[in-house]
Amino acid sequence: MSIFEITKTDSQSNARTGLLRTAHGTIKTPVFMPVGTKGAVKGILPAQLVEAGSQIILANTFHMLLRPGVEIVEKAGGLHKLMAWNRPILTDSGGFQIFSLSSINSITDDGTEFASPYDGAKIKLDAAIATNIQNRLGADIIMCFDQCPAFDAPQKEQEKAVERTIKWAKICKNSHSNEKQLLFGIVQGQTDENLRKTCAKELIKIGFPGYALGGLSVGEGTEGMLKTVRFAAPLLPVDKPRYLMGVGTPADIIQAVQAGIDMFDCVMPTRNGRNALAFTEKGAIRLRNAAFADDFTPVDANCGCVCCKTFSKSAIRHFFNTGEMLGPIMLALHNIVFYHNLMDKIRQNIENDTFNSWAEQALESPAYARKEISA
Amino acid sequence: MSIFEITKTDSQSNARTGLLRTAHGTIKTPVFMPVGTKGAVKGILPAQLVEAGSQIILANTFHMLLRPGVEIVEKAGGLHKLMAWNRPILTDSGGFQIFSLSSINSITDDGTEFASPYDGAKIKLDAAIATNIQNRLGADIIMCFDQCPAFDAPQKEQEKAVERTIKWAKICKNSHSNEKQLLFGIVQGQTDENLRKTCAKELIKIGFPGYALGGLSVGEGTEGMLKTVRFAAPLLPVDKPRYLMGVGTPADIIQAVQAGIDMFDCVMPTRNGRNALAFTEKGAIRLRNAAFADDFTPVDANCGCVCCKTFSKSAIRHFFNTGEMLGPIMLALHNIVFYHNLMDKIRQNIENDTFNSWAEQALESPAYARKEISA
Repeated sequence: MSIFEITKTDSQSNARTGLLRTAHGTIKTPVFMPVGTKGAVKGILPAQLVEAGSQIILANTFHMLLRPGVEIVEKAGGLHKLMAWNRPILTDSGGFQIFSLSSINSITDDGTEFASPYDGAKIKLDAAIATNIQNRLGADIIMCFDQCPAFDAPQKEQEKAVERTIKWAKICKNSHSNEKQLLFGIVQGQTDENLRKTCAKELIKIGFPGYALGGLSVGEGTEGMLKTVRFAAPLLPVDKPRYLMGVGTPADIIQAVQAGIDMFDCVMPTRNGRNALAFTEKGAIRLRNAAFADDFTPVDANCGCVCCKTFSKSAIRHFFNTGEMLGPIMLALHNIVFYHNLMDKIRQNIENDTFNSWAEQALESPAYARKEISA
Repeated sequence: MSIFEITKTDSQSNARTGLLRTAHGTIKTPVFMPVGTKGAVKGILPAQLVEAGSQIILANTFHMLLRPGVEIVEKAGGLHKLMAWNRPILTDSGGFQIFSLSSINSITDDGTEFASPYDGAKIKLDAAIATNIQNRLGADIIMCFDQCPAFDAPQKEQEKAVERTIKWAKICKNSHSNEKQLLFGIVQGQTDENLRKTCAKELIKIGFPGYALGGLSVGEGTEGMLKTVRFAAPLLPVDKPRYLMGVGTPADIIQAVQAGIDMFDCVMPTRNGRNALAFTEKGAIRLRNAAFADDFTPVDANCGCVCCKTFSKSAIRHFFNTGEMLGPIMLALHNIVFYHNLMDKIRQNIENDTFNSWAEQALESPAYARKEISA
């Protein structure tokens, strides 16, 4: 059996459904991966994620490296054991977090060194180390160590980042020593078509079981992001899974699926939920709003999640108003279910060959409208 | 059927098991009530409390009065609806919180007035108002508005507080207008036997379906508390439920049951859990301890709670170390289960007429040892 099997291709777009086989089970794509930054999707139990329909979750190498540290995770028997999560896990390489930290200033061709925000201890990270760490953390899918420059960095820097990303990808592949894991390459190059083309071409030469588009949704705006996805997705092998990192709103996801993307991760549902924003069939609502003080209906009338089956909008608003943890937890969980339901609809419409017309309608609906949503 | 039915009395102590019938179901006593201060047991879902074995929970009138306010709770259809909790609820009168606030200085024979910590709005509370509010909140058991002075307040003040508590109890009974609710009287008088005797006698004259011992565990020390309980419990009618407010450690509870107490509430399991302390068969442990960094066994090997069935000590320590909500939530839930298991053992040993010898052994065991535990 191949690692990735396309089960259906939409006749009117690049959308497709597939099965991605990993050491901890098979994932139906297109798939959304909730983010478990520090070894947990904040406030949510593994059993609740399973009930929500999460097929795979993401964990951040950078954060796990700082605490509890690779040694502890390894001693625990790997990330799955520590997190009590028996389904697939994907780890990023740690690169994105490091390059986002302003205190980092020593990025060289060889990698970087940074001070732990906890105790100031110097930590070195490069392509070989990032791969070794991910090998030891034991996720099912791991990512190449790449450089993601700021979206408004000068052209020279964008070029340098692509050059390094390619160079590091070779090192990552050579260092990769855990055959149970799938190592994905990451295409960088911001919104520059030539850079994206070069990076994709070189990574394909190296050869990976899956490819990601990185460096997007970092400030270039929705149109710039989608234009790049539409250009870059077809540059990637049609028979391999394509992962759009860090994206996005429901509308972003629908449109990226149209462009041929199979995998997504984003803090959008969870972070927004913790900030009292709930995605609903009627559009996003903010539960701190005084209008909900005496609204005793569920957050989303047709939703079957624990939040909607248990509490009223009034109760959730009360929880946010009094700093009760159940507010953030319930809305994060509700939003995860909303995202998983969206992916269900996407997969179903692709299977039925109704995806493209469904997508065009969906993008005009209040639930998935093409508008910016800020956390 | 009577409201309270004693099903077994221990032959060697004042301990007894009973059934307390309320509008939302029958409670097996002795019972421990987790505290849901602001309309939720912090971070814990109603379904998780049911699974943990919680028969009844406590909600604080003072906090519900401030937010979301009585009108909202009433409009929601009562506390049970707002909290999504279908089992019994007990509300306190609000008196304890008010008298604990140092900013309150206008306590008169008529009650008190205080400023909302949220918006400074003046709120008046007296015996009639506290009863009316509780009638509207709709808990199954409600409490008389009492005065609880500081444990080291002068004798004059203790006497005055008992006098007011008796006077207010009459007003509460006369004001009480929701026949679905049981209104309990509260005996004050600190560690003073004469005051306790007077207060109990006068409250019994007024007549309530249940009686509480209030004003304990406020600084008088374990010995002072237990001495008072042993003296005061037998002053209360043998055929009515006896509730020891705000107590306590497992050892306190065992000894209070020996003295004839049927009901307990305390933040001990939940607040301690949120502060990384777990009660276990081998004694209390602090999960922030570095010794647990690579301890991959459950918090309590023989515990069947979600925490112990899901996570290792190492994972829980990691959660506390990184500010992950699952740490506090899991230990609070574990501790609630620990307390409910303790009450199960107590009830079972009373039923088997082995309670007193079990209790003496239990008090020497690491799990329930007679030592102070601070949150």
